[in-house]
Amino acid sequence: MAVYNFSAGPAVMPHEVLEEAKAELTDWQGSGMSVMEVSHRGKAFVACAAETEALVRSVMGVPDDYAVLFLQGGATGQFAAIPLNLTAAGDAVDFLNTGQWSAKAISEAKKFGVDVRVIADEKASGYTTTPAAGSYELTPGAKYLHYTPNETIGGVAFPYIPETGDVPLVADMSSMILSGPMDVSKFGVIFAGTQKNLGPAGMCLVIVRKHLLGSARLATPTIVDWAGMAANDSMTNTPPTFGLYLLGKILKWVERQGGAEGIGKLNAEKAAALYGFIDGHDFYSNPVAVESRSIMNVPFLLANPELDKQFVKEADAAGLMFLAGHRSVGGMRASIYNAMPREGVDALIAFMTEFAEKNG
Amino acid sequence: MAVYNFSAGPAVMPHEVLEEAKAELTDWQGSGMSVMEVSHRGKAFVACAAETEALVRSVMGVPDDYAVLFLQGGATGQFAAIPLNLTAAGDAVDFLNTGQWSAKAISEAKKFGVDVRVIADEKASGYTTTPAAGSYELTPGAKYLHYTPNETIGGVAFPYIPETGDVPLVADMSSMILSGPMDVSKFGVIFAGTQKNLGPAGMCLVIVRKHLLGSARLATPTIVDWAGMAANDSMTNTPPTFGLYLLGKILKWVERQGGAEGIGKLNAEKAAALYGFIDGHDFYSNPVAVESRSIMNVPFLLANPELDKQFVKEADAAGLMFLAGHRSVGGMRASIYNAMPREGVDALIAFMTEFAEKNG
Repeated sequence: MAVYNFSAGPAVMPHEVLEEAKAELTDWQGSGMSVMEVSHRGKAFVACAAETEALVRSVMGVPDDYAVLFLQGGATGQFAAIPLNLTAAGDAVDFLNTGQWSAKAISEAKKFGVDVRVIADEKASGYTTTPAAGSYELTPGAKYLHYTPNETIGGVAFPYIPETGDVPLVADMSSMILSGPMDVSKFGVIFAGTQKNLGPAGMCLVIVRKHLLGSARLATPTIVDWAGMAANDSMTNTPPTFGLYLLGKILKWVERQGGAEGIGKLNAEKAAALYGFIDGHDFYSNPVAVESRSIMNVPFLLANPELDKQFVKEADAAGLMFLAGHRSVGGMRASIYNAMPREGVDALIAFMTEFAEKNG
Repeated sequence: MAVYNFSAGPAVMPHEVLEEAKAELTDWQGSGMSVMEVSHRGKAFVACAAETEALVRSVMGVPDDYAVLFLQGGATGQFAAIPLNLTAAGDAVDFLNTGQWSAKAISEAKKFGVDVRVIADEKASGYTTTPAAGSYELTPGAKYLHYTPNETIGGVAFPYIPETGDVPLVADMSSMILSGPMDVSKFGVIFAGTQKNLGPAGMCLVIVRKHLLGSARLATPTIVDWAGMAANDSMTNTPPTFGLYLLGKILKWVERQGGAEGIGKLNAEKAAALYGFIDGHDFYSNPVAVESRSIMNVPFLLANPELDKQFVKEADAAGLMFLAGHRSVGGMRASIYNAMPREGVDALIAFMTEFAEKNG
């Protein structure tokens, strides 16, 4: 039976990449060693890390005036790193609150003595919307605007990139990084935990405009000190080598799908098929405003929530895994990241059709 | 040709563990998914993480009044975490400086406004010694004593556990964790980057006495907040799932070697063979005071340092990898961690014998 994994993260990885990693797990490049066993300072691994960085730059179109960092601690680590690297105590910082990951970032920033201004908050809609462009005002003197282009739990995505003028725009792209083309030059800082579109858990990709480096507070832990990490090719300390290696393979896989453009087209088609089905079926509904729907995380509700457990159980039995919604919101959620094949979405739709027929 | 990997870290892993991981890399527990792809909140992975924690407790003999944490950021992350979790600004903290990893910890602590007291410093010997028990005095009121039981670069190890009375003893065990039996109850905090004896890079094992939890500063990043992590089974955010999974397999492998006692005996025999050879041969020398020699990291010098490059080159060709000493000190270093088989040490000695005969 084919298994399709709809986990929100850690999440499905490209099958080809896993097969490659498996084939060479005990003997990398004919070295007789696993890639996990080699020194990060050795020639072979330094070349591997450099290739991964070059691939990030080429596949994502990262301009030369941006540093590309591979750090530990996931996006949550960066929630602390951002105020530590970009502010002094007392500085104002702006946030758009569109759901649980925005809220976590806001909560973490408050630990570091900044003046947190939530200049838009979608609470009134139950976090099923994004604020309209131009509907919020930046705080004069704010050091940055932090937002979450795609809320993994709510399945809410911005249909536009906020305009911030000279104020650095900071974006938590964990659940939508490399899901399609993206103009990196619009951002001051992009960061993304790797465990959705970029590989296993345990690494965070950080892309930061170089002129923002060098203002970190003294009390910035070395592991999240961007300038230090940029100066040391992300090897101030030992990096998560296996994740770096797999990220390189995943980026080459994205290239084979037609790069950011190609994968974006495939993702748009998968999402259109699933939303189209949900919208056309009385038994299912998606609570998110149409223009703010995520193409990566698709939450949906059954007409009769008493059937939720049965739905999950039967889906599991049919090889459609991890469809239960986040424990905080219930319902269902299908995460359809880059590595989810179109066949998986079609199998989900077929299952949903049958389930509704039996129980509707 | 057999390949033996003497890297200081990331380092050799047990061959059996790598073979097991390879066999199930694309299909874990018959799920049709890689362990890297499954949700950390799913039943299967939660059970895997719980088993890993139980194995740490049983194999290392961790008492119930200690929390066992699996964090990101390596030991370097804990260099910041320790003052953040255990002190307020202005508090005094004591250090023993026995080499480069002590020095890094001292340097990081200074970022956080503590009164750093280096109460013993082995500079006079060129960091080839450890301070004698009773030769240093704790600072009255110091919040902890931090030391490095085994200096990875210098190959210097404490032959005893410092007595600190009621003052928490904090130990960076990165390069000697689980190299033999250890009385955990003597310590306030034990921490160890996993990339030597515990698996791939990207995780840090932290074992902390529970009564030390709960005093963290407000400005403690969530990813290194021990109390929060203890309350959430190290899953406040997504943990490095593949490392957790592999650690479990490595601990079972240690059990098969006879547990901490058994592996300690094997390690002592390997180290005795290598030091015995070095001491008995004019062509080689080890600079460390005999009572402070590491059983994990064995630095050695050639009588003629002009032959260093040739030694490394010929060793590589003979399948004896990563023998060059740390870039800061030169010479050679053989790291003979738990997973280095006795045969690897014997092969190194045979090579060294032959090299000396040809060039001595």
